[in-house]
Amino acid sequence: MHQMEEKILKDGQVLPGGILKVGSFLNQQIDTAFLREIGEEIARLYDGSGVTKILTIESSGIAIAAAAGIIMSVPVVFAKKNKTSNVSGDVYSTTVHSFTHNTDYNVVVSSEYLNKDDRVLLVDDFLAEGNALRGLIDLCGQAGAEVAGAAIAIEKRFQGGGDAIRAEGIRVESLACISHMDDEHVEFCEL
Amino acid sequence: MHQMEEKILKDGQVLPGGILKVGSFLNQQIDTAFLREIGEEIARLYDGSGVTKILTIESSGIAIAAAAGIIMSVPVVFAKKNKTSNVSGDVYSTTVHSFTHNTDYNVVVSSEYLNKDDRVLLVDDFLAEGNALRGLIDLCGQAGAEVAGAAIAIEKRFQGGGDAIRAEGIRVESLACISHMDDEHVEFCEL
Repeated sequence: MHQMEEKILKDGQVLPGGILKVGSFLNQQIDTAFLREIGEEIARLYDGSGVTKILTIESSGIAIAAAAGIIMSVPVVFAKKNKTSNVSGDVYSTTVHSFTHNTDYNVVVSSEYLNKDDRVLLVDDFLAEGNALRGLIDLCGQAGAEVAGAAIAIEKRFQGGGDAIRAEGIRVESLACISHMDDEHVEFCEL
Repeated sequence: MHQMEEKILKDGQVLPGGILKVGSFLNQQIDTAFLREIGEEIARLYDGSGVTKILTIESSGIAIAAAAGIIMSVPVVFAKKNKTSNVSGDVYSTTVHSFTHNTDYNVVVSSEYLNKDDRVLLVDDFLAEGNALRGLIDLCGQAGAEVAGAAIAIEKRFQGGGDAIRAEGIRVESLACISHMDDEHVEFCEL
């Protein structure tokens, strides 16, 4: 998605430690006209794939998942970090390592909202080492749900997570794919 | 908003401790056709109010804020719980007491994303004692931004937060207003 690359070049910022800050348009402040385009692009990519549900992890994936869900007319479910007092009853649970924060955290989703009849599109803002995505795949596996694929706003391909998951036969689409990044500049993958 | 009352009666569930669970359609699984209607209703309520930005708190307010923001064509900003490694630089910060979890937490927003030229619509899923909303009002005050008002999916009016904030001259609109709630049934406010 050419617009995502343009946005990253124009408004993104590389922070020390290999973090790409896109808070001005994607994951703290959200450019909603752009968000609508993201939703339309994800819907286009997965058109005809029989998706019944979109699954994401709070918080940064929620707006993207909601935009795609509105256009695709499918429900969105978000896995929560840590069990809260209003996630009651049976849950599926998995542990995810955060690259950004260098910690492990637990994510849960109520078993009511994910089941064996679902064909699930996984949505997130970033894909780096693939830990969050693997967590979502694990939750789908626990539910017996089928994974239709993943739609990621920004893939940091040089961290390898996306290709490792593709190698397992899972479709992974990223709207922008970064092949290399340093303090000076960002390079995108050749398509 | 009549549809919100219907949804609560049909799919909501009262949990012990005065918690209304709406996870099946609003804040864990999201009914996206309904989410679009919520966005349209918020846009209708604040049409002509000169809103330049929508502010919410992660996580449950994000999808609602995004839906409203897409329709109103204004950016959405979400305050984060705790400072994370990719919220850099100057932040506005405030402390919020959570009714649901009975804990205090810190919320922050980068000062880049909220400023004195903004006229801000505050959006959240629930309004009970009003603590989260007061936190958002405080963040706007720190930024010198004007508060256009608040749009809340579900107000638990018997907990008093909404009326206390209205008494201070701030416009508060709720899409469903609950006057009384117990394990047996939910009663809505007379309009």
